[in-house]
Amino acid sequence: MSPGPIVRHARREDVPAILELIRELADYEHELSSVEATEEKLLSTIAFAPSSSTSTAPAAEETESTSSTRPARCLVLTSPEGTPAGIALYFYNYSTWRARPGIYLEDLYVKQSERKKGYGKRLLVELAKEVVDMNGGRLEWSVLKWNEPSIKFYESIGANMMSEWVGMRVDGEGLKRLATLLD
Amino acid sequence: MSPGPIVRHARREDVPAILELIRELADYEHELSSVEATEEKLLSTIAFAPSSSTSTAPAAEETESTSSTRPARCLVLTSPEGTPAGIALYFYNYSTWRARPGIYLEDLYVKQSERKKGYGKRLLVELAKEVVDMNGGRLEWSVLKWNEPSIKFYESIGANMMSEWVGMRVDGEGLKRLATLLD
Repeated sequence: MSPGPIVRHARREDVPAILELIRELADYEHELSSVEATEEKLLSTIAFAPSSSTSTAPAAEETESTSSTRPARCLVLTSPEGTPAGIALYFYNYSTWRARPGIYLEDLYVKQSERKKGYGKRLLVELAKEVVDMNGGRLEWSVLKWNEPSIKFYESIGANMMSEWVGMRVDGEGLKRLATLLD
Repeated sequence: MSPGPIVRHARREDVPAILELIRELADYEHELSSVEATEEKLLSTIAFAPSSSTSTAPAAEETESTSSTRPARCLVLTSPEGTPAGIALYFYNYSTWRARPGIYLEDLYVKQSERKKGYGKRLLVELAKEVVDMNGGRLEWSVLKWNEPSIKFYESIGANMMSEWVGMRVDGEGLKRLATLLD
């Protein structure tokens, strides 16, 4: 029997492969020009597992602590051949009404050549496990409304669409203006 | 001249007032029965400022570190009379494409009797300042689609509606099922 894919926390040496996958994802969303991520920036904002780690279990406790300036964690799925085939970049969210933490999946991506092998599901299952293990409340993410294949897949594994809510965002110049609005 | 309102990071002794405001907010959203938060749960999931703190500046560095099990921070706005009139509960998010952290505002609430004094704007400005200070990418939150007064207010201070995206959520029994889907 051949070994299956392995899911583990990203180490510093995975960063070139992670950046490549991020760029592929952005290209898929027709937004490649929006990618400002560099290896250096990823190295300073993701909480990594130790490079020496031989553990394949995705235990979050073994990685660096997250912080306000390093809030992201990253799961890497390596194919049986040993190459990174998919990533799940996430951070910890919070439900006020439950007063419980949870996980927000910022980006999930599986390489085009590695699709239809259940890798996306495998990454989502690992995140759901972490939420359950931390006694967390929920696992959340966002999807582009036109991405019907993804929405159907997400619903098939138990996700609900939060159709009553819409996201608001302030960034760039608007953020600087807001920060000084009352000065 | 009377002193203005003060915005500062929540201390442990603010928790009863914070819970009261959370319950008021849930009632406003017709969801009071969904509130599972208790003083004990809030005490174990929010990163607080030290009780002895006399600082009124909302410097995040002075509060406890956030972590996966304590991801939330909370700003409290106290009225000139010294009572908590509003809260902003938030956590740190992440933009993969920018490889930069930011802030996600989970809940903003100003007491009904303290409306129309600019307190909501004041809390948002403090959060925008923290994002700018941390060299972060964006300040984000969600709003109920039917809440037009809030959406107009948010747009007036520079926020954009993320209309192309929809949130997905797995919780409760669905979360447990997903966590064991591949066992």
